[in-house]
Amino acid sequence: MMEENTVFVGTKPVMNYVLAIATQFNDGSPKVVLKARGRAISRAVDVAEITRNRFVTDIKVEDIKISTEALEGREGGGKTNVSSIEIMLTK
Amino acid sequence: MMEENTVFVGTKPVMNYVLAIATQFNDGSPKVVLKARGRAISRAVDVAEITRNRFVTDIKVEDIKISTEALEGREGGGKTNVSSIEIMLTK
Repeated sequence: MMEENTVFVGTKPVMNYVLAIATQFNDGSPKVVLKARGRAISRAVDVAEITRNRFVTDIKVEDIKISTEALEGREGGGKTNVSSIEIMLTK
Repeated sequence: MMEENTVFVGTKPVMNYVLAIATQFNDGSPKVVLKARGRAISRAVDVAEITRNRFVTDIKVEDIKISTEALEGREGGGKTNVSSIEIMLTK
């Protein structure tokens, strides 16, 4: 179904995600999509930059999209809006 | 020289930046560029999303660029790399 590979960036160390992406490109994927929400957005940008500057230097940032997602509140309250980002990396 | 207006997003409350951008568009600017580095990147995305969803609904995200900047270390040490983002909003 999904041809492209998606990596969700959360609270793990940046290098974990960098290595996950490098592995996917080395396995032959032509495209990897990074997704992150809220504070992890900054980390996703770090991951993309470190990957293409130091590990897989022949990829480029094809497109970046930002959007807003409505999440259910933790304690049955209303909904909370959270920003999200998608960074498309292609070889 | 610089036709476009630039807003640097740092550690102030998100609403400060939202209002700065809304004011620029209301003053007739056709384009506003948001810039942020490091952890402020997540905040810049929040600012862009809140501005276009709630305050200036006729703008769109024209382009987003990410890059890496080399900053001087705090105590005369080596250089530190920091990720940065530029979000171009146009009317």
